[in-house]
Amino acid sequence: MHCVLLSETLDLRGYLASEIDRLRDRITFVDHPCADADEVRLAVAWDPPADGFSRYPKLAAACSIGAGADSILRCPSLRAGVDVVRVVEPAQAQMMSGFVLWHAIGHQRGLPIYRDQQRRQLWRRIPQRAARDIPVAILGFGAMGSRAAQDFAALGFPVRVWSRSARPAPQGIAAFHDVGGLAAAVEGAEIVVNLLPLTPETRGILDARLFARLRRGAFLIHVGRGEHLNEADCLAALASGQLAGAALDVFAAEPLPADHPFWDHPGVMVTPHDACDVSVPAVADTILATAAALERGETPPHTVDRVRGY
Amino acid sequence: MHCVLLSETLDLRGYLASEIDRLRDRITFVDHPCADADEVRLAVAWDPPADGFSRYPKLAAACSIGAGADSILRCPSLRAGVDVVRVVEPAQAQMMSGFVLWHAIGHQRGLPIYRDQQRRQLWRRIPQRAARDIPVAILGFGAMGSRAAQDFAALGFPVRVWSRSARPAPQGIAAFHDVGGLAAAVEGAEIVVNLLPLTPETRGILDARLFARLRRGAFLIHVGRGEHLNEADCLAALASGQLAGAALDVFAAEPLPADHPFWDHPGVMVTPHDACDVSVPAVADTILATAAALERGETPPHTVDRVRGY
Repeated sequence: MHCVLLSETLDLRGYLASEIDRLRDRITFVDHPCADADEVRLAVAWDPPADGFSRYPKLAAACSIGAGADSILRCPSLRAGVDVVRVVEPAQAQMMSGFVLWHAIGHQRGLPIYRDQQRRQLWRRIPQRAARDIPVAILGFGAMGSRAAQDFAALGFPVRVWSRSARPAPQGIAAFHDVGGLAAAVEGAEIVVNLLPLTPETRGILDARLFARLRRGAFLIHVGRGEHLNEADCLAALASGQLAGAALDVFAAEPLPADHPFWDHPGVMVTPHDACDVSVPAVADTILATAAALERGETPPHTVDRVRGY
Repeated sequence: MHCVLLSETLDLRGYLASEIDRLRDRITFVDHPCADADEVRLAVAWDPPADGFSRYPKLAAACSIGAGADSILRCPSLRAGVDVVRVVEPAQAQMMSGFVLWHAIGHQRGLPIYRDQQRRQLWRRIPQRAARDIPVAILGFGAMGSRAAQDFAALGFPVRVWSRSARPAPQGIAAFHDVGGLAAAVEGAEIVVNLLPLTPETRGILDARLFARLRRGAFLIHVGRGEHLNEADCLAALASGQLAGAALDVFAAEPLPADHPFWDHPGVMVTPHDACDVSVPAVADTILATAAALERGETPPHTVDRVRGY
């Protein structure tokens, strides 16, 4: 099956290099724009060019190389009939959960303070707060949110989760849903973790109104998409002390511009959209499963619901 | 019941202040050396003076204020008939596990590197390794080791545990025991977590021989007691690259002396014996439960096995 590589920001052929041998039997990768456009039924895409899909009339499916497919879904040339597929990998949820826990425990225990004390050779104990006194609100309750919720609960944190539609939650986890449930989910929370997919409904969801509902001195862990966060509101909440700190992995503009105030803000930890990489083997598995489904005339696994946006 | 406060390093009356009202009905605290020594049946002790227990012929039990009772057990004036009691608190195991996970995830994900990159406003992704590729060896499989083992396993790390005697382990956790099992437990591990009690058998257990069995570039998380670690061997393993880093919370001499090489070693994170505080209410509960047991003529809960040493 011919598969076109569509990206304005990544060298997808290089990215897939370690798996090319395994894929070669079933998939013929072609670069965009390619001559035999009518043969292309599949695309692997990340930040595709605006007119990227228009050239391939027989395209049936487009695979993302990440857990999110928003950069494909917002491409104006994407036609309605094309299945958009995202990568779902169990190890990815564990990796994301570990990243999020790291920041949360650092906030709970004041661990960054010890680094400064060590620099000054200062032996001073810090009064510790038990996890049970630190409510955590997790926005997004898919594979990643669910994994994180269970890991937080195991460590003793009171956990609330919020998702678009009602879903059953394990015992001990308070579940909220819909626009109406958001306020209750975050009310008085000290740690808020954003794991939402980017959709028109979730764009800008991390704003002054949400921050105002948190416990004073709260901590934001933002690992969704840059467009979820109102960056000006975040800086204002940090300045007022409503937010004590923020761990930001995603930004409206990436790479984060050199003059951005997040870089040298003492309360902000910047990471370069690195919280959770899907593995290249998992991407290759997704491409193979998508091709196999197309050959059988079936909808590929992990096809995004275009109405929900994830 | 009269209870003497025995410590050379802590103000135990100040430490217990927030719980004194609750304890007052049942317990009369007296300072050492006290006049009515014959009335004293109970002690609360931490680093007791060498001759501290000799003054109290009717002493029946001595409560630690921590999970370990080694500072009581090594006191030369402690008589054989005195029950030595340690504090066991579920939230404590969660707190310890969180502390340990924080260091382990930081090693796995290279998170400290991002801090340096942020200082230089450098947006550079770091190749990430899945937890499944990083074997963790946990020394000690009591309440804390068990909690940590489960939390590591939930995040996808392969987990081995080692304890003095054979104990059943949950599925997916490889259990080793006895002196003979130690080598197999740590062989090729990349993260080693020390949660052992201090006993004559475990003193100096973290030495060059153990480090040599680990994967090259391993990471040590040491939250037991200072005397478990051969500090010279640790520095040598860091210098050779056998250890990539170490998180050290406990030391042979505490506070860590100002000229100690750990303070400004780039691979070492020093914390001031703060990994896991038991809460003052939990200490108070332990004192009350011990007093109640003595009144009923029973052995107090969480009495240390003097032969095992924990």
